[in-house]
Amino acid sequence: MFGARCLLRALRSCTSAPCPRHKPSARLSVRDALGARSTNGERVKVQGWIRSVRSQKEVLFLHINDGSSLESLQVVADSSFDSRELAFGSSVEVQGQLVKSPSKKQNVELKAEKIEIVGNCDAKAFPLKYKERHPLEYLRQYPHLRCRTNALGSILRIRSEATAAIHSFFKDSGFVHIHTPIITSNDCEGAGELFQVEPSSKIKVPEENFFNVPAFLTVSGQLHLEVMSGAFTQVFTFGPTFRAENSQSRRHLAEFYMVEAEISFVESLQDLMQVMEGLFKTATMMVLSNCTEDVELCHKFIAPGQKDRLEHMLKNNFLIISYTEAVEILKQASQNFTFTPEWGVDLHTEHEKYLVKHCGNIPVFVINYPLALKPFYMRDNEDGCCCDLLVPGVGELFGGSLREERYHFLEQRLARYLDLRRFGSVPHGGFGMGFERYLQCILGIDNIKDVSLFQDLLIRVL
Amino acid sequence: MFGARCLLRALRSCTSAPCPRHKPSARLSVRDALGARSTNGERVKVQGWIRSVRSQKEVLFLHINDGSSLESLQVVADSSFDSRELAFGSSVEVQGQLVKSPSKKQNVELKAEKIEIVGNCDAKAFPLKYKERHPLEYLRQYPHLRCRTNALGSILRIRSEATAAIHSFFKDSGFVHIHTPIITSNDCEGAGELFQVEPSSKIKVPEENFFNVPAFLTVSGQLHLEVMSGAFTQVFTFGPTFRAENSQSRRHLAEFYMVEAEISFVESLQDLMQVMEGLFKTATMMVLSNCTEDVELCHKFIAPGQKDRLEHMLKNNFLIISYTEAVEILKQASQNFTFTPEWGVDLHTEHEKYLVKHCGNIPVFVINYPLALKPFYMRDNEDGCCCDLLVPGVGELFGGSLREERYHFLEQRLARYLDLRRFGSVPHGGFGMGFERYLQCILGIDNIKDVSLFQDLLIRVL
Repeated sequence: MFGARCLLRALRSCTSAPCPRHKPSARLSVRDALGARSTNGERVKVQGWIRSVRSQKEVLFLHINDGSSLESLQVVADSSFDSRELAFGSSVEVQGQLVKSPSKKQNVELKAEKIEIVGNCDAKAFPLKYKERHPLEYLRQYPHLRCRTNALGSILRIRSEATAAIHSFFKDSGFVHIHTPIITSNDCEGAGELFQVEPSSKIKVPEENFFNVPAFLTVSGQLHLEVMSGAFTQVFTFGPTFRAENSQSRRHLAEFYMVEAEISFVESLQDLMQVMEGLFKTATMMVLSNCTEDVELCHKFIAPGQKDRLEHMLKNNFLIISYTEAVEILKQASQNFTFTPEWGVDLHTEHEKYLVKHCGNIPVFVINYPLALKPFYMRDNEDGCCCDLLVPGVGELFGGSLREERYHFLEQRLARYLDLRRFGSVPHGGFGMGFERYLQCILGIDNIKDVSLFQDLLIRVL
Repeated sequence: MFGARCLLRALRSCTSAPCPRHKPSARLSVRDALGARSTNGERVKVQGWIRSVRSQKEVLFLHINDGSSLESLQVVADSSFDSRELAFGSSVEVQGQLVKSPSKKQNVELKAEKIEIVGNCDAKAFPLKYKERHPLEYLRQYPHLRCRTNALGSILRIRSEATAAIHSFFKDSGFVHIHTPIITSNDCEGAGELFQVEPSSKIKVPEENFFNVPAFLTVSGQLHLEVMSGAFTQVFTFGPTFRAENSQSRRHLAEFYMVEAEISFVESLQDLMQVMEGLFKTATMMVLSNCTEDVELCHKFIAPGQKDRLEHMLKNNFLIISYTEAVEILKQASQNFTFTPEWGVDLHTEHEKYLVKHCGNIPVFVINYPLALKPFYMRDNEDGCCCDLLVPGVGELFGGSLREERYHFLEQRLARYLDLRRFGSVPHGGFGMGFERYLQCILGIDNIKDVSLFQDLLIRVL
């Protein structure tokens, strides 16, 4: 009905040895090939990019990687296959037999019967160089190619796995997932650092008519989650949020991901803190067990010592100190801070990092902030109803609070927000976790841009 | 260390019968209470909103719902508990014993020992009325309260489950999940209907400096996925996309969700179509088995007949026709179209719906579109390399194509996009599926706003 095998064969130079007739080979990912149990001469097809070429007198060794795992598959071929086009970075398709490897370095190798060059790679122009370990700063210049390195490949597989782990933690705990809006008129944090959204000038629409009111990119899905927790009790969202901060520092992105949760009928901060600690530990354990090699690579080459630090975080109960205690600790510190610690003023990152160090590098909840430091929706209690979780190397990772559910306390607020408190209002609380900071924390990666997929691509590229 | 049980008890009126001393009751969701295996007098605490009150001489029956399931939990209490505050919409906390129900309507009921009113609900002001089935159009006026109805509760639980099912389909198939950027300078579809993004005027930054170039909200993550498929072979994204279309019709949202995938080394459209069909069928089966009652409710009350139509889609192989065949079918149709079908012109929704009906209400791939109708990144093949999947009731659900991987064909394009073809280029293809349309298709829901969480909330509310 349709003959869509539409690749121009001309593109390819097929350096193919005589190949026995047999049924079409099964296509395997490198990961599946490496994990194959039986190697009784099964014929397979593997596709990927060449990571190394070693040419000996009679044998040619290739390593093929397709991004499905950190480890590459060793291909062993007759030296007659050798060709200048079989170079670092080229894409190839190899058919052959999966056999047990004589070497101790791998269990399985692919004995090539046919090697096709799919796409060439000009080594001189290619910014990634064979056998070189490129610094992360260098790679940031090539956001569209850096994912072909071991380091970025590992980080991005971990990011994908962590995303799945977070979704599955909430699903297993009975939370309903909510897509909170990206375009909104909210200004949840009361911050001025918003991006405004308007139809592009190309469109012939009277601008004032499109949204009726100024529209912004969301800084938090919390208020919308509160709506939904009023029906589903436990809800979460995991989506992009935005800050138009001018300082594109190592800690800040204009576009980043946040995990946020709201829980109805919660009356104590302790219940909330349990969920936060549970999320951090459960998700991290899942990542460690599903991406063992990838995490090991980060801990070995990017952040030495991080393996022990992470284990230390996972096996200890998180600590709790009050804001007042925190300020006392900071005032007594021998360290000189850029910003002098003072009661009634928000903590700076340097303070947060010091506090975690002071607590033996165990994550610590700071509670009982002065109300003046926190936004309107937080519950006004003398003994405080909000907390920040500080973690080693990063500082603030989560912020959480009990929300103000009492009608008369909110009466001067927006009518719709009040409606949520008129009809069967319930005590509730919630929290948010910066996803990129979470990845920095578990991997020990210093610059947030290295755990972000396209930050540098944002505008400049494509 | 911290005494954060900070609810003012004054808010609550506790109508509590003498309660035997016992250890604190375990908190259970309604779903877990309903599914409890053993009912040997276990003491539990259930929290939720009152869905019905029936007062008899000696007994009071309440139905409590907390959004964890469609079904509510029946609470049986002594009539001494009766109070005007125990009204439809109020939130309550009930403690008591889970016992086997004598009625056939449910397995389990909760014998109340203590009932606390958590939040009152003024029946007169509450827009949802007891025992009334509100039309979806009516509910659209109350986006912040409508999720407390059976219909919207079910739809949003299904949306959450479908999200999880789509993630798990891709994870099980070895795809890496990618967060493609929301702010971008791309204009993937060549459409003019973009939202432009700028720092809010409140910020004192020279505007031209923030992004250096005009920045827009993404209309598709495809180009960024192509980058990543060049390293991970199989990648997907599932995030918000935007169209500044002025017509906010039943088919269009300004902000909607799209599932997009890219696969390297794919050379035939057939391989791509297999993934699309697999995604549709696997995700739908998962939703049907995890949300059985919720889907039944939609199929019974919102879209009668949809159950059979959906089964028909799932048990048949999807069909394939060419664009030319499609235009022939339309020209021979007895139906009068608003837009006269003509070869070389894109299909309209009325055409798409007719074609699916003509195909016996089985989803149908239309392939071999004239190249002039498709964007630059599609592969230019005589026999066509793109396809749209049309489904009953909705029209186009997926669009997919093989991409142009040949360097010299793209040479006049952006330098960075070309870079992707210089270094180990591979044939690849991908597709996108509108998530709201998917939900409309499986549930038979006519208006896209009813499967969207906050569309009406976008700006007006909160």
